[in-house]
Parts: sequence; structure tokens; C-alpha cells
Amino acid sequence: MTSLSGVWAASLTPVTSDLAPDPDRLGDHVARLLADGCDGIVLFGTTGEATSFSVAERVDLLDRLVAGGVEPARVIVGVGCAAAVDTVALTRAAATHDVAGVLMLPPFYYKAVTDEDLMAAYRWIFDQIGPEAPPVLLYNIPQVSGVKLSASLAGRLASEYPDIVKGLKDSSGDLDSLRGFLAAMPGTAVFAGTELLLVPGLAEGAVGTISAAANINAGQIRTAFESQAAADVDILRQTRAVLATRSVIPALKAVVAQRRNDPGWATVRPPLRALASESGAALAAALPVA
Amino acid sequence: MTSLSGVWAASLTPVTSDLAPDPDRLGDHVARLLADGCDGIVLFGTTGEATSFSVAERVDLLDRLVAGGVEPARVIVGVGCAAAVDTVALTRAAATHDVAGVLMLPPFYYKAVTDEDLMAAYRWIFDQIGPEAPPVLLYNIPQVSGVKLSASLAGRLASEYPDIVKGLKDSSGDLDSLRGFLAAMPGTAVFAGTELLLVPGLAEGAVGTISAAANINAGQIRTAFESQAAADVDILRQTRAVLATRSVIPALKAVVAQRRNDPGWATVRPPLRALASESGAALAAALPVA
Repeated sequence: MTSLSGVWAASLTPVTSDLAPDPDRLGDHVARLLADGCDGIVLFGTTGEATSFSVAERVDLLDRLVAGGVEPARVIVGVGCAAAVDTVALTRAAATHDVAGVLMLPPFYYKAVTDEDLMAAYRWIFDQIGPEAPPVLLYNIPQVSGVKLSASLAGRLASEYPDIVKGLKDSSGDLDSLRGFLAAMPGTAVFAGTELLLVPGLAEGAVGTISAAANINAGQIRTAFESQAAADVDILRQTRAVLATRSVIPALKAVVAQRRNDPGWATVRPPLRALASESGAALAAALPVA
Repeated sequence: MTSLSGVWAASLTPVTSDLAPDPDRLGDHVARLLADGCDGIVLFGTTGEATSFSVAERVDLLDRLVAGGVEPARVIVGVGCAAAVDTVALTRAAATHDVAGVLMLPPFYYKAVTDEDLMAAYRWIFDQIGPEAPPVLLYNIPQVSGVKLSASLAGRLASEYPDIVKGLKDSSGDLDSLRGFLAAMPGTAVFAGTELLLVPGLAEGAVGTISAAANINAGQIRTAFESQAAADVDILRQTRAVLATRSVIPALKAVVAQRRNDPGWATVRPPLRALASESGAALAAALPVA
């Protein structure tokens, strides 16, 4: 069984020209990510445009990915939804595959919610999924979800639900935030939500990274994870600097499209918009070579 | 047929003690709102905890409400979802009932989206639902959704899709914002998203209000709509001042629970949390009497 640690890619979710989920491109992409050095992949994180797909679409893609031969122990399934009932349904679907874990946003429509509000939401979810559910990783990405998880809340959840809450992904991009979660939930699998915090995170007790950029530089992240050398980390920074010039999800898809000579790969679901092919080519050309 | 104007309540969505949708309490509540002077109700707006229910739950509640005898022409159905595909599914379900309209948030998970991004999202939705769909009211509530609709975008959508886009609900709470939408989409049904802007809004061309407070003061809003008298508007302000002391959705449910002597009415789905019974009693006691 793959443990909850190391280098994980927050996989892109390819779609067809008519914006339907594309299980074939997905299966191919995931196989490449694992071959390139990822310990596993997160299906349906923010990078995977998770919330742009219906529950039924997400379940179907997961089923097909596993049927296609990807080991469930190498898959963490994003189950974040505005409606907690949908999160429960997705978690139950993930449980049928014995996946490595589920990555769980809090309900994210209502803003200005308190820790007590979020506690109530997680309690309700946990009471329904029970301890036989896959390990739950909490998911903090306030700049997108609009709902911040505090370290205090994460710590309470880890203490009160030790059979359920097994870790957290902190995508705040802030090392102090990561430190706060590490201190609050010792003994759990806390992932840096960006590969740029992988090496400093490891030094402080993080177990690894779940990375969006890994869709295009998994091997380089693997190298940095193994060596922790400044030169290897610097290459990761160069990649992020290139990606930061555009909206990151369309940028990642555009680079994949370029590298595979498969223009359709660049397609995203609205409200995201695909980059023009020439922009993708420029991005791909600007990326550091391994 | 009821036209898209006047006093509409953004209906609460009651749930049972185990947090299941409660079609019986809902049917009763909607009947009272219509009897109390509402021209119609919005099912599944923000006040209705729409995004805390699955698509299937929302469709089932709508079906039961109509089966229970509520005229579809007095119902606008909220169809806002993080995933545009879910918005399409809900709109199609609403279309089977010939409802007065649908209230449509843009996809709301990804933030920092541009007008072009949202245009792409609405285009994708409109292309799928087609002109035979119910009239679409756009829905601007950036303080909750995290995604702002600009007047410019609303105007473009109304111009390019005149057979689909028939109006907008502006819940920004800002009169200047409402004016901007009125100027940008002339001839459409622009509603003030709060009864406090009903009278000034009417003077500038708004067609009425879709109000959360109407769940507990529909008659008073009706009176203010008819009279436009300062004294009648002042009563609405007093009600809002009382509600503003608590989180508004739990507060509204708690007041309904008090007035109907039905404590279960106060129940909300997480991440919202119900007020304690004594808080509900205090709120109910503090409200102005008609």
C-alpha cells in the first residue's frame, strides 16, 4: 500500500472538444504522472476543475480510472462540494475503491463562517461516512474556496476523529500556515499544497507535497524531493515563475497539449478559458529543461 | 400568468430533524407567503440554503411543491451551482414545470474570474438550455458567492440573449449597483435583492424585490410596495435591524419556528447553525408588530 507521503500530483482533468469528461486522456495522463515519479495523484482537486463537474461525472471518471488499471492506493479523491450531502456521496463512492484517501474541502458557498460552523459541517459529514471511510485529508485553500480552515479547527478535528482525519493539504502557499497545521495535528499527514514549500515543509515535518505543477514537472519535483538540493529546488521555482504569467490551470493544460502535440488537451470547462495555442507554445518554450 | 415583478420572497427551505428536505413544511410555508401578499417565491436562493442541497434534492422538492398545488407561475427556481452542468440540469428540471423563471448564479468556486470568463460560462449554459428554457434572471450576490457580476456583463448577456435573459436580482445591497444594472439592461426585470431598496429601486425602474426578510414580514413589504410611504418603509428597516443582530438565515428560521410554535423549523443544514430557542424567542419579541 502506498502511504500518504511523498510527491503527489493534483491531476488535471481533461475534457473532450464538447467539454465532456475524457477518461482516455485522463488514464494516459495519470499513468505518465506515476511513471514520472509521482507516488500518487489527487483526482478532483482545484487544479482538476473538480467543482466544474457533477457528482455523477466525478464518480464515473473515478470508476473508469480504476477500471483502467490505476491502483486505487495511488489515488486520493477530491470530494469537496458546496453541499455536504454531495461530499458524503463522493466519499462513499471513493470508499468502494479502497483509495488512499479523500481530500475534503469544507462546504464553500457561505462565507464568513466560524470554526464552530465548519466543525458542525465536518461532524455532519463524518457522522455519515463513518470510520470505514477512506482516510480524510482536510483541504485548506482559502484564496479559492473563500473559506479558511484554521489550524485550531484542524487540530480539533484530528483529535476528535483520529480514525477519520489522517492529514491535510495546505494550499495557502504560506510556510507559517503550514507550520501551524503541523503543530496542530501531529502524527498526521500534512502536505504542502505547493512544491515550492516541499523542502522547507519536509524539514518541519510535512510528509510531502500535493502539487499542481507536477502535471508538467513531476520528475523535477521527485528529484528535488530526493536531493533537497538548492539547484533542484531552483528549477521548480523557474517553472512556477513561468506558470505565474497566466491563469495556472489553463496554463498547465496548454503545456500538456504542446508537449503531447494534442491541441484538444488545452480545453477547460468554463468559467476557466483555454489559452490560445501560441500562448501554450510560448509557455512550453519558456519552461526550464530537466 | 404572474409577471416578473412585485414582492417575491426568497423562501427558506425547511429541513426535518435529521436534516432531510421537508416538503410538507415547505408547502405550508409557501402557501402562507403567497397568502400574505407575495406575488411569488424564489425556491433555492441563498436564503433557501440552495447550495446545501444536492441537485436531486432540489428537483424533488420542486416537483413536490408543484404537485402540492403551488402555481409554477409563482415560482422562480434558483439554479446556481459551482458546476455549470448542474445549473443546466436544474434549469431543465425547472422547465418541465413552466415556472416563472430561474435565478442563475455564475459558477462560483473559482474566484478572480473576469467578465470574459463568466461570459464563457453563461454562453455554455445558455447554449445548452436554449430559448425554450424559463426566463433567466441573473443573480449578483458577490459578498456570498465571491463572484461579482458587472453591469457591463449583465448588459452584454441581456443584449446577446434577449430570448433567455429576462432580468436580474441584485443582492449587493447597494443602490448604485442596482442603478448600474438598471441602466445596463433596460426593459428587463431587475429586482432589488433586499426590500430596503424596494422603494428607491422602484423609482429608478426596478420591478420589485426578491427579499429574504419576506419570510417573516411579507405583509409589511406588500404594504410598503403599495403605499411607498415612509412609515411603512421604516417598519421594514426595524425588522432588518433586528435580523442583523444574528446570522440572517438561522434568524429567519428561528422566528418562523417561534411564530408557528414548531421548534423544528429552526433547523438549518451545516455550515449554518440553528439559533437556540431562547434566541429565536428574543428575536421574535423584538420584531415590529404590523
